[in-house]
Amino acid sequence: MRTVNVGLIGLGTVGSGVIEIFRRHGEQFRTRAGVDVRLIRFADRDSERFVSLGLPVDACTTDWRAVVDDPDIDIVIELVGGTCVAHDVVIAALDAGKSVVTANKALMATSGREVMDHADRQGVDIAFEASVGGGIPIIGPLKHSLTANEIQTVMGIVNGTTNYMLTRMAEDGLDYETALAEAQAKGYAEADPTADVDGLDAAAKIAILASIAFNSRVTLDQVPVEGIRSLKPVDVEYAAEMGYVVKLLAIARRIEEGIDIRVHPTLIRSSHPLAGVNGVYNAIYVIGDAVGETMFFGEGAGSLPAASAVAGDVIEVARHLAKDCLGLVGCTCTEHLSVRDIGDLETAYYIRLEVVDRPGVLAATSRVFADHTVSLASVIQKATGGEFVDLVYVTHRASERSVRSALTEIEALDTVRALGTMLRAEEL
Amino acid sequence: MRTVNVGLIGLGTVGSGVIEIFRRHGEQFRTRAGVDVRLIRFADRDSERFVSLGLPVDACTTDWRAVVDDPDIDIVIELVGGTCVAHDVVIAALDAGKSVVTANKALMATSGREVMDHADRQGVDIAFEASVGGGIPIIGPLKHSLTANEIQTVMGIVNGTTNYMLTRMAEDGLDYETALAEAQAKGYAEADPTADVDGLDAAAKIAILASIAFNSRVTLDQVPVEGIRSLKPVDVEYAAEMGYVVKLLAIARRIEEGIDIRVHPTLIRSSHPLAGVNGVYNAIYVIGDAVGETMFFGEGAGSLPAASAVAGDVIEVARHLAKDCLGLVGCTCTEHLSVRDIGDLETAYYIRLEVVDRPGVLAATSRVFADHTVSLASVIQKATGGEFVDLVYVTHRASERSVRSALTEIEALDTVRALGTMLRAEEL
Repeated sequence: MRTVNVGLIGLGTVGSGVIEIFRRHGEQFRTRAGVDVRLIRFADRDSERFVSLGLPVDACTTDWRAVVDDPDIDIVIELVGGTCVAHDVVIAALDAGKSVVTANKALMATSGREVMDHADRQGVDIAFEASVGGGIPIIGPLKHSLTANEIQTVMGIVNGTTNYMLTRMAEDGLDYETALAEAQAKGYAEADPTADVDGLDAAAKIAILASIAFNSRVTLDQVPVEGIRSLKPVDVEYAAEMGYVVKLLAIARRIEEGIDIRVHPTLIRSSHPLAGVNGVYNAIYVIGDAVGETMFFGEGAGSLPAASAVAGDVIEVARHLAKDCLGLVGCTCTEHLSVRDIGDLETAYYIRLEVVDRPGVLAATSRVFADHTVSLASVIQKATGGEFVDLVYVTHRASERSVRSALTEIEALDTVRALGTMLRAEEL
Repeated sequence: MRTVNVGLIGLGTVGSGVIEIFRRHGEQFRTRAGVDVRLIRFADRDSERFVSLGLPVDACTTDWRAVVDDPDIDIVIELVGGTCVAHDVVIAALDAGKSVVTANKALMATSGREVMDHADRQGVDIAFEASVGGGIPIIGPLKHSLTANEIQTVMGIVNGTTNYMLTRMAEDGLDYETALAEAQAKGYAEADPTADVDGLDAAAKIAILASIAFNSRVTLDQVPVEGIRSLKPVDVEYAAEMGYVVKLLAIARRIEEGIDIRVHPTLIRSSHPLAGVNGVYNAIYVIGDAVGETMFFGEGAGSLPAASAVAGDVIEVARHLAKDCLGLVGCTCTEHLSVRDIGDLETAYYIRLEVVDRPGVLAATSRVFADHTVSLASVIQKATGGEFVDLVYVTHRASERSVRSALTEIEALDTVRALGTMLRAEEL
């Protein structure tokens, strides 16, 4: 039986999960994959981890190059994260003729093409199932079972931290700061939550999914992003009254002009399959021209779930190595679709205005929307105490440009104290 | 570029969907799969279909052997269904050295081992993603992305016909006959609905899923089955009152003694992810020791969804052919687990008794449960008009044997008119 040697670089949360999985099931992998897959080398900057993880000292190094250059290593697992060292690790490993398994969304969303090209040139595998949705199989299904479809939509809740926060805001009326503090206390959010709450993590993931789903490369910098920092509990409340749930959605659609892609807090009907996905769970919703609606649900983060995807990729690559089938499915970006400017977006909008409680204000503001051909689906007026009221509009399908110019004009009205919130709604 | 020739046997609902998909996207498959995949021969008993599907006459035959024996054919798609002709088609194709793609759950659930062995011996592929869950990718994920897990549970709603009927019974109080008639009128149920309503279709599917999930062969005849024929609207109603939804679940669990597998109408908490899966939709819920909870949702039937899975398999096999990688993942049944007798089942039970409305009846019946160490979680009494009432019990975890012997004793009480219904509940 062919022996496949694996080197693991980065012994953080996911790395320790991978070690745990190999300890539990390493033996079974031999019978299941028909390959003897072995984790034989480990690298991390922090040598404390070698001890805490109970690794044999002589198998460990603080110098990742020692793993990449080791002629006995067939597969390198990159779990360093980020786009600096991780980039060097992955490129060096591929150039050394080794296949690579990574969970690195940032790297794949920024340098995916470069990484794929290196793998292609070397005729090795690059696998990255863990980069999106933790343990949820989504990249595999898109590249294999669903490959006969023209994918029209791939859309999801792909960040567990913000979904936990939004769930708490919706269920118990917590404000942003309290929800964040709670998420941090539970270890769901990092000390610096920027990547999560500002939507960058979700943006990287949807860039990867869109690239595969639409067979056309989309990079992180092409994804318009809005996070949840400015979201108010009152908006979640009003949305609920109108039959919506607010989720941080990562949305990608194939449209006539190319690709519509974006990340922002979004109102979706409470009857939509994604509306029931709460807490730290993730779900990716896919519509294909043949398969119709599908959804993939599971734990989007955490040590073992992400490690499950990494280990699955390792076994897959090991099978390919043993049967001399590397490079079976390389880069699938065979088309060149352009990404639509968000200004050209047409969707429904939720708009909350803080206005003076005086006759004629509703008429005046509604008038402005009409002047910009933004037609209104519903409006509710809410007393907020004192001389002000909230005017909450949901529009019919309108262009982002028209809505924005209407809002600029409305802001100038002396009866309008402030533009409260503008959220996009998905009418599914 | 390598050309891969495909022969399609069986031009019914799914077959016509496969033809439609190749008409739409056949060209793209060349760039996506790097292979020129072509549907070049078609067989069906009914030659009318050649015309109605607009197929070139000289590419069509009423004799499936002409396709299987055609030296130009690399892949045979079997969509005949059933276990007679289909069995001969698949075995003959494999023995002729051709790879096979099938949607045939009955065949794989009864002769899976034989089929796999033939494929193994010939070093070709046998792919059957479409045999479970229509277009939902589930066999692929279990064999690949999730392969590093020890799967503990695979459980799902895998029959769209019955799920549609149960949804209508729950939402509008339809009785079984009316729900069936409606499903037939909408084309969701066949004239002879036996395979669906008696749970045989679901049993075949869970046998296939269990075999893959637990790496141990389970055949159709090993699956205890109860259908939904005897289900009363009143039970669906009482279940709802107690916070449950009734679904026809196909359940497979890895337990100490081996495998717990069964198909029956089941009470699940309305908060469970499966509870919200309505209409003709299917969903498969999987728990793995590393990945945790995951769920795969989508259209479980219909021409194009099932064809999506078939075409995905065809492209995958074509890739393998082009890169000389056939037989990459063969039979994964490496263990020999035994299937537990349903008498040894321990779960919660829903029991409805029709009793005489007289003091002491509740005490008497409850007494019998206690005598058989069946402890009760909740009970409600419902007037049904006249001298009778419904006594509805939900038990704590109890053994099927104890419950059955308790019911035999209860049935003998002269205050008990009839045992109404006994349903199992999944406490998740």
